[in-house]
Amino acid sequence: MPVARSQTGKKPSTGALSNDELRKMDAYWRACNYLCAGMLYLVNNPLLREPLKPEHIKNRLLGHWGSDPGQTFTWVHLNRLIKKYDLDLIYLSGPGHGAPAVLSNCYLEGVYSEVYPDKSEDEAGMQKFFKQFSFPGGIGSHCTPETPGSIHEGGELGYSLSHGFGAAFDNPDLIVTVMVGDGEAETGPLATSWHSNKFLDPVRDGAVLPILHLNGYKIANPTILARISHEELEALFVGYGWTPYFVEGDDPAVMHQIMADVTERCIIEIRAIQSKARSSKSKSPERPRWPMIVLRTPKGWTGPKEVDGHKVEGFWRAHQIPILDPKTSPKHLKQLEAWMKSYKPDELFDESGRLLEELRELAPKGTRRISGNPHANGGLLRKPLDMPDFRKYAIDVKQPGQVEVSSTYTLGGFLRDIMRQNMTSFRVFGPDETASNRLQVVYEASPKTWMAKILPEDADGTDIAPDGRVMEMLSEHTLEGWFEGYVLTGRHGFLSSYEAFVHIIDSMFNQHAKWLEKSKLELRWRAPISSINFLITSLVWRQDHNGFTHQDPGFIDVVSNKSPHVTRIYLPPDANCLLSVADHCLRSTNYVNVIVADKAPHLQYLSMDDAIKHCTKGIGIWDFASTDAGSEPDVVIASAGDIPTAEALAATAILREHCTDLKIRFINVVDLFRLMPASEHPHGLSEREFDSLFTLDKPVIFNFHAYASLIHKFTYKRKNHDNIHVRGYKEQGNINTPLELAILNQIDRFDIAIDVVDRVPKLQASAAHLKEWLKDQIIESVNYAHENGIDRKEITDWKWPV
Amino acid sequence: MPVARSQTGKKPSTGALSNDELRKMDAYWRACNYLCAGMLYLVNNPLLREPLKPEHIKNRLLGHWGSDPGQTFTWVHLNRLIKKYDLDLIYLSGPGHGAPAVLSNCYLEGVYSEVYPDKSEDEAGMQKFFKQFSFPGGIGSHCTPETPGSIHEGGELGYSLSHGFGAAFDNPDLIVTVMVGDGEAETGPLATSWHSNKFLDPVRDGAVLPILHLNGYKIANPTILARISHEELEALFVGYGWTPYFVEGDDPAVMHQIMADVTERCIIEIRAIQSKARSSKSKSPERPRWPMIVLRTPKGWTGPKEVDGHKVEGFWRAHQIPILDPKTSPKHLKQLEAWMKSYKPDELFDESGRLLEELRELAPKGTRRISGNPHANGGLLRKPLDMPDFRKYAIDVKQPGQVEVSSTYTLGGFLRDIMRQNMTSFRVFGPDETASNRLQVVYEASPKTWMAKILPEDADGTDIAPDGRVMEMLSEHTLEGWFEGYVLTGRHGFLSSYEAFVHIIDSMFNQHAKWLEKSKLELRWRAPISSINFLITSLVWRQDHNGFTHQDPGFIDVVSNKSPHVTRIYLPPDANCLLSVADHCLRSTNYVNVIVADKAPHLQYLSMDDAIKHCTKGIGIWDFASTDAGSEPDVVIASAGDIPTAEALAATAILREHCTDLKIRFINVVDLFRLMPASEHPHGLSEREFDSLFTLDKPVIFNFHAYASLIHKFTYKRKNHDNIHVRGYKEQGNINTPLELAILNQIDRFDIAIDVVDRVPKLQASAAHLKEWLKDQIIESVNYAHENGIDRKEITDWKWPV
Repeated sequence: MPVARSQTGKKPSTGALSNDELRKMDAYWRACNYLCAGMLYLVNNPLLREPLKPEHIKNRLLGHWGSDPGQTFTWVHLNRLIKKYDLDLIYLSGPGHGAPAVLSNCYLEGVYSEVYPDKSEDEAGMQKFFKQFSFPGGIGSHCTPETPGSIHEGGELGYSLSHGFGAAFDNPDLIVTVMVGDGEAETGPLATSWHSNKFLDPVRDGAVLPILHLNGYKIANPTILARISHEELEALFVGYGWTPYFVEGDDPAVMHQIMADVTERCIIEIRAIQSKARSSKSKSPERPRWPMIVLRTPKGWTGPKEVDGHKVEGFWRAHQIPILDPKTSPKHLKQLEAWMKSYKPDELFDESGRLLEELRELAPKGTRRISGNPHANGGLLRKPLDMPDFRKYAIDVKQPGQVEVSSTYTLGGFLRDIMRQNMTSFRVFGPDETASNRLQVVYEASPKTWMAKILPEDADGTDIAPDGRVMEMLSEHTLEGWFEGYVLTGRHGFLSSYEAFVHIIDSMFNQHAKWLEKSKLELRWRAPISSINFLITSLVWRQDHNGFTHQDPGFIDVVSNKSPHVTRIYLPPDANCLLSVADHCLRSTNYVNVIVADKAPHLQYLSMDDAIKHCTKGIGIWDFASTDAGSEPDVVIASAGDIPTAEALAATAILREHCTDLKIRFINVVDLFRLMPASEHPHGLSEREFDSLFTLDKPVIFNFHAYASLIHKFTYKRKNHDNIHVRGYKEQGNINTPLELAILNQIDRFDIAIDVVDRVPKLQASAAHLKEWLKDQIIESVNYAHENGIDRKEITDWKWPV
Repeated sequence: MPVARSQTGKKPSTGALSNDELRKMDAYWRACNYLCAGMLYLVNNPLLREPLKPEHIKNRLLGHWGSDPGQTFTWVHLNRLIKKYDLDLIYLSGPGHGAPAVLSNCYLEGVYSEVYPDKSEDEAGMQKFFKQFSFPGGIGSHCTPETPGSIHEGGELGYSLSHGFGAAFDNPDLIVTVMVGDGEAETGPLATSWHSNKFLDPVRDGAVLPILHLNGYKIANPTILARISHEELEALFVGYGWTPYFVEGDDPAVMHQIMADVTERCIIEIRAIQSKARSSKSKSPERPRWPMIVLRTPKGWTGPKEVDGHKVEGFWRAHQIPILDPKTSPKHLKQLEAWMKSYKPDELFDESGRLLEELRELAPKGTRRISGNPHANGGLLRKPLDMPDFRKYAIDVKQPGQVEVSSTYTLGGFLRDIMRQNMTSFRVFGPDETASNRLQVVYEASPKTWMAKILPEDADGTDIAPDGRVMEMLSEHTLEGWFEGYVLTGRHGFLSSYEAFVHIIDSMFNQHAKWLEKSKLELRWRAPISSINFLITSLVWRQDHNGFTHQDPGFIDVVSNKSPHVTRIYLPPDANCLLSVADHCLRSTNYVNVIVADKAPHLQYLSMDDAIKHCTKGIGIWDFASTDAGSEPDVVIASAGDIPTAEALAATAILREHCTDLKIRFINVVDLFRLMPASEHPHGLSEREFDSLFTLDKPVIFNFHAYASLIHKFTYKRKNHDNIHVRGYKEQGNINTPLELAILNQIDRFDIAIDVVDRVPKLQASAAHLKEWLKDQIIESVNYAHENGIDRKEITDWKWPV
């Protein structure tokens, strides 16, 4: 391997460390690597104080060795600098399956034993620590929530760098080191997240120091970045806007010196960038070229070079378990023992099994320990938002269904003032769509963050500035990653997205929900963090003009598969309800809140007081639309979602006019999980509550925002389920008018009215004429749309009859 | 703007075109741009032969102008080269919302009128062509399936380049030009897809010519790549492994000359790379640095410079409709008219409204027309796979449940031979996991594609070569994009993925399913293409060691939301069933087939003959496990999925032993959609069939692979639904043994047996003892696992009792 080199070609100093420092750091590193191997293999004999026997080996060997030594190497060098410069620094492990690297350091720093006292710093504790790793009833082989110091599990690859930037925003003194796996670097989300440097303000934000770990291999393949030329690799990161420093080699003594030099150089450079920016008065400072490190070390460095004649160190065979069968092969048992003894455990741990004092001193103390840094348990640092009273932004609703307002535009004012009152702990995220989603008044509090070039014409409406707080980039992955990193370190946020394209981050949602569930239910020591708040907008029913590919309301189906302890879905029917729901969500912790609300102007129904009552209950009868006067109705018309509610109300108005003796009960659902049985979701209605709302045997016509099956999923155990007839999106649509799109999926007023007529026995004799009229309305509506390109005025101007 | 420059700094020639060529090409371009504007605005007066009046303007203005002129400019220059070099060339529009650019060329080439004769090449046809654009009942504003020449809609951004590479693989004579939007370039999937050049073999594959369209703006923001320095931009693409050529400017006359020169240079370079590689005898040719173009033109080029004093051309205001209210503002109506007249339509179209003959000659003829190229209607070129007989790979199953085999390993042999028999039209895709998913015998037919560096140690098991046919990169997005591009151009493929992480491409699946549905049901002229075949493996129930984040069986929930006309879900219980299902899927067209099968060894149940019968029916009673002897059973035990089937069978064995008079019917489901009503899915069982299998009133214990709610979703309309009790994944799991994970989610043998005992009235008196024993088994199993790290031998060695 070539000797290390820096980007400028200048050979780094090789005398950064004194001999004593070098000796100790190498010993510390050996201790880490010893622990890593121990976690993979041993259930007993943790310090190899007796000869290694098959019964000391786990029955099932599970875990990843490959990236561990490179990661521990980095950590040991970060420790040196934390101590030397009193750094506030956290570490994110991109290749999180290399958890032994993080766990071993966490254990050596004493934090593991503080959090899990039975894993004490002695031989007995070490044995338990080894055994539990990747062991039934134990802990995962990734940097799971159970791992102190971790905010990034790294199970699903691709998000380490965006998480890292999220952690750095508004944390001016924090340095976030992110180990990026070279396999991970092939993912799309990671590939674009290098551009996050265009969104980091050196004055206000902390620093991110990425370390690309050129390990060379994935499970069984080389990695792309390890097999392109140095020139291409360097150009790539220069192109991404970084200053790459290269640390390449495999001789530990040399590598320690080079790594010490390069990491220190990076810290000095980071501080120089920050102090220059912070002392400058310029409103448009130049975007700095932040340093980064490319660390090229052999995969499974210091592990077995070969096993049975096959290359292991520096090859993909080192990815997981380098020696596969020490329990059954005496030869391999010997090889394992020799490998582990090569770290000289006797020279590292004292009699009791505790790390030698002179090595312990290499680690920082208290909250400066990476594994004990409170930023990685962000709930500890979290302060609730300073919230204005959301009632201030209320729409004045005197009569239901008379005025049209964009609910999201209304919400914008509330978000603007939250931002104004929380100028260091609240951000709004949106993939190029904050304004498109009608939240643009937030720019009055703060423009969009932009560290790339600003042109004179931007003054006319582009709303960008280096110190902006609205985060926009055309990458749902990056935004969600930033957002997660931001809340995981104790801050607050709000993300809006086109409904169809929030599916892009389905898997990120899954991973975060799983993180939350474990943190919340099983780890008391993790303090609650702010919820992830999604505003899903540009909804399916107003994608009549973007067409079929923009119509997909299925994200909430994905959400509904995750734990009821961490998921909430709200469909506020109007602006005042949206304000009330948003206020609730922004105050909450440890949830993923999904709010579904369209951006176009819609009729408003509830006064603020009524909206608060309605949202607090989450479901309720709307008396103004009902004609059952508290008695048993003939039919229940229910709705969830702003547009389906409008259509259901319009159907109700038609029926009230034409079927004067029909007793209708109109129910609106805001909090979707109210429909689930109380036994399955904390928000679920009791059986009695549900039955008293939806009756035991009357037809229920449920007009739903998304796929109908979700309502059946939530209600199939309810007594009246057989009579619940749900209408929702049926994958019908192309280029339409709003009404035509509703008609194609039969959530329109006319189809609902027909359905009621068909299902209420007492109407069937007299209503033939009404049905004919309704069918004519449908045909007429579509014909009009195809001729004029818009809906009839009597549809678009429709109001609730007063 | 700076004058165009090439990467080398060499000033391009400005005399590539003669004056006459320049004049005509510019006129052709003006015709395109005129048509684009017409599509956005006009319902009538298409050639502006009368003064423009409000009634000529659409009531609702919807569409995107911004990227149109740059795209049409590119197309016109590609036409020149197609003619000059007789190129076989297709075009993918990354910013597909700029569909007017593609549609206008399609119309001018005559293809649109051939496919849609009412949109004829005359004034009347042009009026219809304009009116239908983004108009109710008309066509979308994206490059939807309705667009001849399109294989890439560009609605959801990020996949243009991976689609382009998919089209180029195994098409040695094809040049795929891909217009990449600079907004799109911010997405993760696009950012990593530049690395596809490490997987393109210049000998065997065609070429991809990316054109990054530096338009400068998204909806309301600048783009990142437009606001970094030239040096960074150039370094970025050099780093990605390309040779970038820059074409930058806004003076059409100059830009035509430069674009002509640069595009021609790229074609010559592509041909030189190909002929060098193809004439070389080297087995490890050097990876070429393919050319690409960075085209920096003003957004909305040639459109209105300003509207009401606000900058429009070259600014984000040009993104959609540049003049917003010509119907109501006389001033803006005038401005629109002046803008459209600036293209001089009278000099472009003849009296009848047809493009002038001297301009028509600029377009290629027949199938050389980009919009008429058969590669963009790949079904026309598709040949069925030459398939070996899948029965050859059968596992010899003499008795059910006696031998353990990895089903996916068995499948590997079949895939290997399919590959051998189809060495130019079949590829296998997997994110670094073909071997990890036990399909590694396919490497016997062909190694993995790898154009980056190959090292000597790779000879020992890495299985990579430039002409490999197995596609592996750690990017689900890129693989799925390649796969889609490959089948859309008439070829075949198979993709395997970890179950939890296939959610990464949920939204890509959605988009492709929507494309298929429109193509299949509404567009006769689109010939059927091969299905997308997903093998979902490394299943939730064997992620007991990777832990919670790797446990998510919800992809099939996403799939179930899409049209029944294009989706299929199969859960083969063993290897022979997997072979039969895979054979069926690989022969099919116009579906997304999802096959769920684990990679670990599992018991085998059916002989090949029985497997074929079972899979053909898709659901059936397993007589060997049933004790109802054809009569009405006391209980139905049903299963879907390999691991739940094994547990359900083990439960059945326990019950047969302990409850000898219990009449059990055992049903296995392979084709999940059989459960749906026949009225809702073409594979659905009739009511009678379903009732005769599942009875009208007996308890059904359904052990399911994924989330239980999916079975309820499919069966809630069935008569016996209230008695169907489904067990599935409940988001319970961490580090476990396989049995412990099953126990946590209650899909294990003991819990099922307890459930049966609880639900069958005749057992309840006598079975208290059995229930106690079953509960003890659960406790003992977990205790054993926590002590030993593995399941008890009597569990792992369990066989069906013969």
